[in-house]
Amino acid sequence: MPVTVDERRAPVARRLEHAALELFATRGYDGTTVEDLALAGGVGRRTFFRYFPTKLDVVLGELDTLLADLVSALDAATGPDAVACTREAFLAVNRYTDADLPALRRRLALIEDVPDLAARASVRYRDWERAVAADAARRWGVPEDDLHPQVFARAAVAAMRAVFTTWLARPEASATELEVLVARAFDALDHGFGGNGGRSA
Amino acid sequence: MPVTVDERRAPVARRLEHAALELFATRGYDGTTVEDLALAGGVGRRTFFRYFPTKLDVVLGELDTLLADLVSALDAATGPDAVACTREAFLAVNRYTDADLPALRRRLALIEDVPDLAARASVRYRDWERAVAADAARRWGVPEDDLHPQVFARAAVAAMRAVFTTWLARPEASATELEVLVARAFDALDHGFGGNGGRSA
Repeated sequence: MPVTVDERRAPVARRLEHAALELFATRGYDGTTVEDLALAGGVGRRTFFRYFPTKLDVVLGELDTLLADLVSALDAATGPDAVACTREAFLAVNRYTDADLPALRRRLALIEDVPDLAARASVRYRDWERAVAADAARRWGVPEDDLHPQVFARAAVAAMRAVFTTWLARPEASATELEVLVARAFDALDHGFGGNGGRSA
Repeated sequence: MPVTVDERRAPVARRLEHAALELFATRGYDGTTVEDLALAGGVGRRTFFRYFPTKLDVVLGELDTLLADLVSALDAATGPDAVACTREAFLAVNRYTDADLPALRRRLALIEDVPDLAARASVRYRDWERAVAADAARRWGVPEDDLHPQVFARAAVAAMRAVFTTWLARPEASATELEVLVARAFDALDHGFGGNGGRSA
């Protein structure tokens, strides 16, 4: 069967991305130009721009792909329990193999450490918040701009980012441990942070 | 009694800030230069820069002042119940008179609507998250980088931002209503978002 354009496209983008993440790790994000990235990926500048419109997109483009996965997972989840459905969806988009971890760690570290990337990631995560708020409001039967779905959606995305920070601070933590942290964060959102509670979480 | 430099300084900064917020509201943030802002405030460009190092600081500088207030409020709160103490501190920094509201609404709307301001605000709010995480970890007797205080701190700041969005969408909402929304958001963090719960919040 013939390979589609999309199927041919993915490996090139993946290769360019891996070469870029490696280069950022050694030379720093700000010290690396798009020319460097194209050269490291074995393509010309114009080809590089076809895959990544800006240098930011090499690191942050994945957030948009994952958002599409999140929306699919939310659509697939059934029932009125928005917290349970959101938990399932966040677990689904944070399911990695151990082979994925080096690239994931590099990407997350760049988003934490480079102020420009941190700033731009926050803007992209607003789309995640909107998707979660819309889904939760629908399940709860309330308007999307009500306080409850708005607070829940923001808190859920914030919780996921706290999970990333915690996981990143443990260099030996596995892909399974990432899922365990996501589950624990959602336990707190589901049952509350309590007064003195959850000390061992 | 002689007036200190700080006391003399505040009214000028306040006047420049109000003139700036009005100008941003009519001409747009991107369409306004620092020269425009200085002129509107009746000072020279160099004087303006003494109060606000960048145009961003006219809108976001307040976040650093409020962070100092938040830290004071957290330090003043006693007891092991981190959620209750954080709730008190967030209520304290969100206590406005109705006379403050027009400037507050303008500032919050700019942070929502101008992508560059949204991005930079998120970076400043990371300092808020660190302050809340450090305080909660201390009260709970756990390391600051544990999952629980990290998730709680991020969720608390995220909840406050959701409150702002909700409050901003209600043009008639008073200063008291802002406090009510903060209290409701903290009820959800304290007791959990439940499965189907909190529909009327």
